[in-house]
Amino acid sequence: MDSLGALRRTHNCNTLGLDNLNQEVVLMGWVLRRRDHGGVIFIDLRDRWGITQIVFNPEVNPEPHAKAHQLRSEWVLAVKGKVEARPGDMENPKLKTGAIEIMVSELRILNTSKTPPFPLDEDSEVSDNIRLQYRYLDLRRPEIGANLVMRHTATQAARSFLCENGFLEIETPMLTRSTPEGARDYLVPSRVNAGKFFALPQSPQLFKQLLMMGGMDRYFQIVKCFRDEDLRADRQPEFTQIDLELSFVGEDDIMAIAEGLVKQVFAATRGIALNPPFPRMSYQEAISRYGNDKPDTRFGLELVDLTEKLRGCGFKVFNAVIEGGGIVKAINAKGCGTFSRKDLDDLTNYAGTFGAKGMAWIKVKEDEWQSPITKFFNENEIEAMRQALNAEPGDLILFGADSVAVVNQVLSELRLELGRRLNLTDNSVFNFLWVTDFPLVEFDAERKRYAAVHHPFTAPLDEDLELLETEPLKVRSRAYDLVLNGSEIGGGSIRIHTTEMQAKMLNLLGIADEEAEEKFGFLLRALEFGAPPHGGIAFGLDRLMMMLTGSGSIRDVIAFPKTQKATCPLTDAPGSVARKQLTELHLRPDWKEA
Amino acid sequence: MDSLGALRRTHNCNTLGLDNLNQEVVLMGWVLRRRDHGGVIFIDLRDRWGITQIVFNPEVNPEPHAKAHQLRSEWVLAVKGKVEARPGDMENPKLKTGAIEIMVSELRILNTSKTPPFPLDEDSEVSDNIRLQYRYLDLRRPEIGANLVMRHTATQAARSFLCENGFLEIETPMLTRSTPEGARDYLVPSRVNAGKFFALPQSPQLFKQLLMMGGMDRYFQIVKCFRDEDLRADRQPEFTQIDLELSFVGEDDIMAIAEGLVKQVFAATRGIALNPPFPRMSYQEAISRYGNDKPDTRFGLELVDLTEKLRGCGFKVFNAVIEGGGIVKAINAKGCGTFSRKDLDDLTNYAGTFGAKGMAWIKVKEDEWQSPITKFFNENEIEAMRQALNAEPGDLILFGADSVAVVNQVLSELRLELGRRLNLTDNSVFNFLWVTDFPLVEFDAERKRYAAVHHPFTAPLDEDLELLETEPLKVRSRAYDLVLNGSEIGGGSIRIHTTEMQAKMLNLLGIADEEAEEKFGFLLRALEFGAPPHGGIAFGLDRLMMMLTGSGSIRDVIAFPKTQKATCPLTDAPGSVARKQLTELHLRPDWKEA
Repeated sequence: MDSLGALRRTHNCNTLGLDNLNQEVVLMGWVLRRRDHGGVIFIDLRDRWGITQIVFNPEVNPEPHAKAHQLRSEWVLAVKGKVEARPGDMENPKLKTGAIEIMVSELRILNTSKTPPFPLDEDSEVSDNIRLQYRYLDLRRPEIGANLVMRHTATQAARSFLCENGFLEIETPMLTRSTPEGARDYLVPSRVNAGKFFALPQSPQLFKQLLMMGGMDRYFQIVKCFRDEDLRADRQPEFTQIDLELSFVGEDDIMAIAEGLVKQVFAATRGIALNPPFPRMSYQEAISRYGNDKPDTRFGLELVDLTEKLRGCGFKVFNAVIEGGGIVKAINAKGCGTFSRKDLDDLTNYAGTFGAKGMAWIKVKEDEWQSPITKFFNENEIEAMRQALNAEPGDLILFGADSVAVVNQVLSELRLELGRRLNLTDNSVFNFLWVTDFPLVEFDAERKRYAAVHHPFTAPLDEDLELLETEPLKVRSRAYDLVLNGSEIGGGSIRIHTTEMQAKMLNLLGIADEEAEEKFGFLLRALEFGAPPHGGIAFGLDRLMMMLTGSGSIRDVIAFPKTQKATCPLTDAPGSVARKQLTELHLRPDWKEA
Repeated sequence: MDSLGALRRTHNCNTLGLDNLNQEVVLMGWVLRRRDHGGVIFIDLRDRWGITQIVFNPEVNPEPHAKAHQLRSEWVLAVKGKVEARPGDMENPKLKTGAIEIMVSELRILNTSKTPPFPLDEDSEVSDNIRLQYRYLDLRRPEIGANLVMRHTATQAARSFLCENGFLEIETPMLTRSTPEGARDYLVPSRVNAGKFFALPQSPQLFKQLLMMGGMDRYFQIVKCFRDEDLRADRQPEFTQIDLELSFVGEDDIMAIAEGLVKQVFAATRGIALNPPFPRMSYQEAISRYGNDKPDTRFGLELVDLTEKLRGCGFKVFNAVIEGGGIVKAINAKGCGTFSRKDLDDLTNYAGTFGAKGMAWIKVKEDEWQSPITKFFNENEIEAMRQALNAEPGDLILFGADSVAVVNQVLSELRLELGRRLNLTDNSVFNFLWVTDFPLVEFDAERKRYAAVHHPFTAPLDEDLELLETEPLKVRSRAYDLVLNGSEIGGGSIRIHTTEMQAKMLNLLGIADEEAEEKFGFLLRALEFGAPPHGGIAFGLDRLMMMLTGSGSIRDVIAFPKTQKATCPLTDAPGSVARKQLTELHLRPDWKEA
C-alpha cells in the first residue's frame, strides 16, 4: 500500500470541467467502476462530491498503467494527472464532469478492499440487516449519502433562520430527571448516588420552560430525545427535535416563526417555495371531516356524518348503533363503483384490522343503488344520503357504524387506504395544515382520571376557563400541531405561566400535592418568581427528513439507525458489561445469564 | 394578573433611543429596580437584550401610576407608552437606552414574584448550591446570561466556519456501545434485550471514523459526550465537543482547519484577531522546558536540566538522586530573591502536595549564593548553574531532584504557582500552542502491558514504524493537542486506516484477538473495505468557553450544570424510580433501600 505522504488533493471529484483543460490535478477517492477498452483502463473515481473518469493509457504513461491492472471496486486511490477533453462521442452529459477525463501520470494505492457484500452503484435489493451491518458501505451509496447531505442542509437552514430571528441555541441536560411525557424513560443508573437514576430526556420541555423563566427568551436547540417504546416502522429509540420556545408571545407569533422555519428548510433543501400562512383547522373539524387529528388534505374523500339522517331507519344494524349512542358516517369513494367483490372484501378486512365489525357499502348506479342493504332504506333516506354525499352514478359509498371513536378511526384509515389505491397521494405536493383547539384533557378510563392530551403544562383557552371545573372535557387547549400530508411534523402550545393555573391543572389531572411536589415541585416553585407568558413548538426532524427526501424508512435519513428491536447490527449495541460495572452501579442482574 | 391578550412587543429593552422620540411602543420584561421620586415611579425594565427606564407619572397617566404602586422586583410587565427624552441631567451614558424613557400609558401585570433568595443585579456572594437550585433566577443575572449568549455565538461561528469549508454536520448515536476511551461509561440498561446495556458515548470517535469509511468526508458535530468519572472543578458528567474528521489529509490540513475555526470563534465572540499558524512544540521539548505536555507559554520561568552539570557534586541528596537514575532540574524565579522564609516554606509545602520530598533553593545575591546548600557546591558547579540558569543578583533558584516524573510534575506545578503569584498569567493574552509527536504508547505498570497514550486508533509516525516491534516506547504518534494558556482545548490525530497496522497496534497493546474482535471487530472489518486515510480533532467547548468568558468555573458557561457530586439541585436529578421500572430493565437493587 502506498502512503499519502505530502500529496494533497487539488480538487474533489465533482468540479473539473473544460475550464480546467491541461491543468495538472490531484484527485482522491474510491474505484466505483472499471472498464478496460483497447488496452486502456478507464476508472470512475468517486468521492463524496461526485465522480470523475480517470484514464490509464499505456502509451502515455506506462508506469501507472501497469500498476492499475490490479485495481478493483472500492480500492482507495490518489492520482495525479492532466485534465483532458473526452473524445466527442465519449462525453457523458449526465455527469457534471462528463466532458473531461484525467490522464493519470502518478497512481498511489492508499488502500485495497474486499468485494463488498452488496453492489454500491445500483439500487439493489439488500436486506435491511445486511445494510445496517455494513452501514459504512451503505453510506457510500448515492441515495443514503444524499439524504445525509440534505439533512445537513435542512438543519443549517433551520438554524440560520432561527439565528436571524434572534434565537439562542442553548444546550439542556441529557442526564436529567424523568419528565412526564408519558412514554417510558431510558434510565441511567447513578454510581455516586446509590439507588438513584438519571433519565434521558423525552424532550427538553421543562428545561426550555425554565430557560424562559430565566429570561433566556427565544431559545432553540436541535437535540436528541429518547423514548423506550416498542418501535414502529417510523420510530427510533433516539430521535431528533428542532425545539424552540419564546416568551411574551401568543399562538400566532409561534406559528409565524414555525412557518418561516419550514419555508426556509424547503427552499434550501428542495428549492420549493412554500407560501405561508398555512391553513388552520380545529381539532373538532379535523375529526369530523377526516376522522383524525392529522388529516392528509392532499385529497378529498371526506367523512360525512349520516347519524341524524338515518336515525330510525329500517336498517337494524345502523339503528341499533345510533340508539346505543354511536354514529354512522360514510365516505363517497368517487368513481369506485367499479370495485370488484374482491376489492370490497379487501377493504372490509382492512377496516376490520382497525376494529370495524363489518363494512356496509353501496354502489351508486344510474338506475339503482346496488347493495345488500339498499332495501332497508326508504326514498327520503336515500335522497338525504345522495345529497349529503354528493353521490353520483359510478360512486361507491362506504359506511362506518359504531362508537364515535371506532367509526372515526376505521373511516380515517379506509380513507387513507383509498387515497393510496387511487394514487391521490402525490409526494411532490406538500400540504401543510395547523390543527388547533385540541381538548385540554381526556378521560383515562383505565386509571379513572383525566389525562392531559398534550402535557400538563399546556394552557387552556382563556374563553374556556370557566368550564375547567364544571366540564373539563369541553375545555380546549392552546396547543397546535403542524401536519404535513397526514403526518404530524411538529407540535407545541402556549404554556401555563402562573402558579395558580398550574396547580389547578395538576389538581384536575388528579395529581396529589405530594406527587406534584415530587415530580414538578421545582417547576411550581419557578413559576412563583416571575415566570413570563411563553410557548413554543418542537419539530420531529427525522420525520420531516423522511418527507423531504421521499424516503420510505426513517432509517434512510439517519447515519447509524437502530433496528426495530433497538439494536445496532454494525456495533452490536447494546452489549454485555462486566459484573463489576453493575456492582459499581449498585445493581444486580435479574435475568438468566448464559 | 393581567393577560397578554393581543398586545405585542414592538421593541426589546435594548433598542430605543433618541431616534424613536414620541413613538408609541410596547415593551415587556422584568422589574429590575424601582425608584420613587417626587411622586413619580421609575422602573428599570429588563429583558434578555437590555434595560429601558419606564416612568409612571400620576400627572400624565394617573391610572397606570395607581396600578404601579404594587410593583416589586422581578414582577413581569407589559407596558405601552411614549418614548421621551430624559432630562439632560438624568441621562445614563452607561446604558444603551440611557437617553430615553417610556412614559407609560398602559400597564399590564403579567406575573408577580416572590422576593428572590439572592439579589440579581449585583455580583453578590451566593453559595453555588443556592444558585443552582434557583438556576432560573441565576440565569437572569447579566454575567450568566452573557456567558450563554457568547456560547451561542461561539458555536454558530464554529459551525459557519465548518460549513463554509465543506463540512457536513452528521449526528452519531447516543445509545451506543462502550468505546475504549478508558474512562468509565454511563450505562443504559436495555429493556428489550435482557442483560444488555447501551453506553453513552465518551466521544463519537469510532462513528466518525466509520463515517470516513462511508465516504462522508469532512464530518463535524457539536455533540454531548459522557464520562462517569469523579468530578474535578472543571469537569462535568456530560460535556460538549466540537468534533470533526476529514479524509485524505495529513496533520497540517487538520491543524489549518482547527486554526481557522478557533480564529473565527475568537473574532466572533471577543473581537480578537488571532494570527495563525500557531507555534508547534514536540512533546519532548514541552516536557523538557515546562515539565508537562500543555505548557502555559504566557511566561518564562522554564525548567533547566542540571543533571549532567551536578553529577558527582558534593550535595549528597542530589548526588544520590542522580546516581539512582533520577534528575535534577531547576527554575530561576527571576527577581524572587526577596521571598521571605514563609514564602519559601509555602512553596515547599505546595511542592510537597505534588510528591516533592523537599525543595532546595538558592537566593542569588550580589556577593553570595545564600542557601543552606551552597556550601556543597564547588566554583565550577556554581558557575555552570549560573550560566545555565542565567542567574543574576535578586533571583531565586528552586530545585527539584527526584525521578524524572516527579521532578517534572513538581517543577511544572511550582512554575504555574509562581506565574500566578507574580501575576504573569494575563487573561487578556491568548497563547496557543500545538504539542505534537506524543509517544504512541506508555507502559501501564499495574496491568503490565502497553497502553495507548491517545487511543488505539492513532497512527504512528511513518519514520518510527521500524521501532514498533523493537522499542515501542520510542515510537511517536501522529497525535496533536491544541493548548491555550496551559489548558488543553483540543486534541486529535491521524488515524490508522489499514487492517494490518490496526491489528499490529492492538497486538502491541496486548489486546488478544478475541478481545479485539469483541470490542473492535466491526472497525477491523470496516478497514478491510477500502478505508481512506483520515484524521480529525475534537475541541472541548466547555473549557474553551471558560477561557473566552474568563469564568472561574465551568458551571458558569453551562445552562443547567451539575454539582461535583453529579447532581442537579434544581430538578433533584438523579431521582428514585419505581421498582417496576427496574424489573422491566431486568435489574434488581443492590443498595440498602430506605
